[in-house]
Amino acid sequence: MIQGIGASAGIAIGRAFVLPNWEWELPEQKIDVADFAREFERVYEGIRTSKSEIEQIKDELREVVGSDETQIFDAHLAILDDPVFMNEIQGIIQRQYKAAEVAVKEAIDHFVTMFDLLDDEYMKERALDIKDVGNRLLKHLLGAPEITLPSDTQPFILIAKELSPSQLAHINPQHVLGIVTLAGSTTSHSAIMARALGVPLVVGIEMKLEEPIQTGQNLIIDGGDGAVYIEPDKGIIDSYTELHRLQAEAKKRLHDIAGFRPITPDGKTLELAANISSFKELEVALSSGAHGVGLFRTEFLYMDRNRFPKEEEQYEVYRSVAEKLGGEPLVIRTLDVGGDKQLDYFELPEEDNPFLGYRAIRISLDRQDLFKTQLRAILRASHHGQVKLMYPLISSVDEVRAANAILNEAKRELEQEGIPFDRGLKIGIMIEVPAAVMIADLLAQEVDFFSIGTNDLVQFTLAVDRMNEEISHLYEPYHPALLRMLSMTVEAAKRHGIKVGVCGELAGDLRALPIWLSLDVDELSMSSHSILQVKERLLRTSQKDSREVVLKLQECRTSTEILELLQSFMERVGSKTANG
Amino acid sequence: MIQGIGASAGIAIGRAFVLPNWEWELPEQKIDVADFAREFERVYEGIRTSKSEIEQIKDELREVVGSDETQIFDAHLAILDDPVFMNEIQGIIQRQYKAAEVAVKEAIDHFVTMFDLLDDEYMKERALDIKDVGNRLLKHLLGAPEITLPSDTQPFILIAKELSPSQLAHINPQHVLGIVTLAGSTTSHSAIMARALGVPLVVGIEMKLEEPIQTGQNLIIDGGDGAVYIEPDKGIIDSYTELHRLQAEAKKRLHDIAGFRPITPDGKTLELAANISSFKELEVALSSGAHGVGLFRTEFLYMDRNRFPKEEEQYEVYRSVAEKLGGEPLVIRTLDVGGDKQLDYFELPEEDNPFLGYRAIRISLDRQDLFKTQLRAILRASHHGQVKLMYPLISSVDEVRAANAILNEAKRELEQEGIPFDRGLKIGIMIEVPAAVMIADLLAQEVDFFSIGTNDLVQFTLAVDRMNEEISHLYEPYHPALLRMLSMTVEAAKRHGIKVGVCGELAGDLRALPIWLSLDVDELSMSSHSILQVKERLLRTSQKDSREVVLKLQECRTSTEILELLQSFMERVGSKTANG
Repeated sequence: MIQGIGASAGIAIGRAFVLPNWEWELPEQKIDVADFAREFERVYEGIRTSKSEIEQIKDELREVVGSDETQIFDAHLAILDDPVFMNEIQGIIQRQYKAAEVAVKEAIDHFVTMFDLLDDEYMKERALDIKDVGNRLLKHLLGAPEITLPSDTQPFILIAKELSPSQLAHINPQHVLGIVTLAGSTTSHSAIMARALGVPLVVGIEMKLEEPIQTGQNLIIDGGDGAVYIEPDKGIIDSYTELHRLQAEAKKRLHDIAGFRPITPDGKTLELAANISSFKELEVALSSGAHGVGLFRTEFLYMDRNRFPKEEEQYEVYRSVAEKLGGEPLVIRTLDVGGDKQLDYFELPEEDNPFLGYRAIRISLDRQDLFKTQLRAILRASHHGQVKLMYPLISSVDEVRAANAILNEAKRELEQEGIPFDRGLKIGIMIEVPAAVMIADLLAQEVDFFSIGTNDLVQFTLAVDRMNEEISHLYEPYHPALLRMLSMTVEAAKRHGIKVGVCGELAGDLRALPIWLSLDVDELSMSSHSILQVKERLLRTSQKDSREVVLKLQECRTSTEILELLQSFMERVGSKTANG
Repeated sequence: MIQGIGASAGIAIGRAFVLPNWEWELPEQKIDVADFAREFERVYEGIRTSKSEIEQIKDELREVVGSDETQIFDAHLAILDDPVFMNEIQGIIQRQYKAAEVAVKEAIDHFVTMFDLLDDEYMKERALDIKDVGNRLLKHLLGAPEITLPSDTQPFILIAKELSPSQLAHINPQHVLGIVTLAGSTTSHSAIMARALGVPLVVGIEMKLEEPIQTGQNLIIDGGDGAVYIEPDKGIIDSYTELHRLQAEAKKRLHDIAGFRPITPDGKTLELAANISSFKELEVALSSGAHGVGLFRTEFLYMDRNRFPKEEEQYEVYRSVAEKLGGEPLVIRTLDVGGDKQLDYFELPEEDNPFLGYRAIRISLDRQDLFKTQLRAILRASHHGQVKLMYPLISSVDEVRAANAILNEAKRELEQEGIPFDRGLKIGIMIEVPAAVMIADLLAQEVDFFSIGTNDLVQFTLAVDRMNEEISHLYEPYHPALLRMLSMTVEAAKRHGIKVGVCGELAGDLRALPIWLSLDVDELSMSSHSILQVKERLLRTSQKDSREVVLKLQECRTSTEILELLQSFMERVGSKTANG
């Protein structure tokens, strides 16, 4: 047995398939000055192809793992767009008279070495990204084929030196039982993706491995504790087979509750809805027993093309989703780009602090033509189901009024054109800016519902960019300040008789469940992958017990104290079932 | 009379001096491949010289106009450090075999044209910055002299096509009565600097000018309403002379109150302290009647050199300031770099959102060696005056405790070494992160005083980077959410019996005065230039009236409503004196 690091939980039992190392064959001859332009063009062409390929991978993956995980590839796109990278390549071609592929290879090596030298986890991750995207570019320049995995054999456990997110994206979970990488870390992009794909992964066994694993060897890997058994004996096989069976059963039990109503033992109903980004994701949501869609992120409709989607195109999508939901609620959030979400065809200004910049409703109120097109499409779709409208990043009463003024214009137009829409369309806002929390009572008088966006709210409240690895330890969703903001918001909503839900990442975090129950929130909207787990826990957590623990939370002065209380509460609820 | 745009208030009466346009003479001959390295080195040398020159201008100006205004030059430094700028220059040298100065000139023209084409106010400003800093670089490459203004003649009114911040920085207000620029806008960097320097400025008269103004013509300009009189008749001269005299008298009256105590007519004392960045700025602060220093920004001590300042160096500065204050309070804020403040010798990570990043206390707690050195220096200085210690960007109780643990270590060390320090040293924190407001009651139990940093607090609360021109209209310090946060903070401080002050820009804003009086804040700390104006207003504004107007503010739903009420209150107080 070799002890690695568990990076994606789950057990895999099967034969090893060792991924061969790919060696590039690079042209050796020097080029001529007259070839510069041609070689430049080859690099550009390679970049264009690589970019569209990455976009496609993103699209495919999004349906499997959701949109959060596919943001990994945005880092790759950014590298391809980086003038420093391009300048380095051009410089090598011009100064050293080398062919495009050689220049690309040397530029990759240059940056990878540079970042690797920095001896910093974050920079090493960036080095891997450059290597990954650089190899993709190289592949296109050399016309080399993608490394393909056998698909005609038995499913296998994949062994690789290291695995890039690009390579993982091409893996079919039907054929790959689990993965072992010799290098790698639990926080790498690949590990995040393996978890999202539900493929067991053990990393970092290189140092402990006396001789290489061979294709065809029998393996057992445990992605939870990081154990890798090579040619295990019957006793180990039997006990892991049993463990594997139990885990599969637990998974099945979870699926059985998809049809249950989301009610606590003491009768509190908490609707569980799904966050989706496309019509295709709806299928997964419905099979997870989602009660409608609590957040339809329309920006992906804008990202998957080279121009703004027309009213008709948007309408078709919104209507399909609304109809498919058959009367269950569909909350459509208006365009939320800017920040870290860009559109290729809509040049946003370079910003020093894009999270605090020109984005979401701010763009909509500035570009009223685009906004009204979207509002018209949503209004038209509202005729075909229970559609609700939601504005993102609201920070003032003025913004709600300005947005509603444009909505009313759109309504008047449709009326004049004789096009039907739901005249009672409910209007809500995201509560994700601290100012919105502070004036939640004023905002509650302007709208029909709130949806708390915990991700941005935590970022602004703590002044912490959660993508920034240097300070990620300060991103504390369980900070006492947040707890108070959540109660302020929910209390304001209740006082003014409007509905309040939560749609940030915290909504799918089991530890937060007693908070929502205690505050008496109406709805949680989350990634489809979390719904069953949350529901399973909800069915066993009483509102009364939740209130007791949250009373104690209010005495806490630090995140650590809050987390400890929530953790031990969760374990108590967890053990309750385990014992019966 | 020509109607321009008033960009810096004040009247100037005198003769015109028209700034000649400078034409560069550029070498025409092509260079050889063998000269590449030499020309590159010339560019690098020019950049180094330009950078140190800009640093020097910043230093000199800071003493005159304070540190906020000199940030303009950080944009210039950033351009010189920008690899894209350097790449463009190198590319022209290499591809077109041109000399360094020609390459620089063409690179400037390239970027200026590009930004100008974008037809966006912000980008046009950036074009001006590039032109300004590019011309400085060119000057060093060509060995051309700085354009000098006559200093042996009578003071004059300067006429220029446009004026860069660099040119303005070299102006001696003793010789320049006022400035007229043909182009320019009220929001340009030059206009901001003219206001800081107190030089009247009229911009944008180009279109309305039938023939050019000549050196030696008599002029009157009114930087308030933008009027420019060329060869005015005696009536106009007389009335403007009278107006000018009245304005000068008002200015003098202001200076007379420097020694008055800051007390409202109904007896509320509100201490007015100064924000300073260096020992030299202290002089201005004291002559403005500042009650001590409410914010000593120590980062400038770190910026003005090429390595971290040693304990001894820091101690000398802190002690000099403390001694010069002779027992009046000196609040020293620990290092607040990161965000938009960088140190040349301390590489901070590239961040997507530096305002939400690795900065201030986060760096101090991460780099405890640096932090302890500073704390030791501050502790030692505390023996020589009334020193207080303040931590920036606090967002949790944990951070205060962690910082205090290091402080206690430093105290123990000094004790062992037998070095004296104030054992009762008061510890305070900046309240500038929304989380700190939300848990102000918990934080108040950990420290001796609060200082509300309104600039960052507004930015985080509204999720608006105030430097971002695209959304600067959303930077609303008078947002109802802010008002509520201010009361939450002050109430928590009062409840726990600790002092509370304000040290952001809002502290020096006359409109905000009734808010501070109504909340019963203890101290306002501001740029020395604002102290007298605020004191003059304070002497005439009663706490009782302030409370009445703030009661009404609490009913407001929008910033506009709040500002209208404050504006009309201010006018009422203003007219009270005007009439008696």
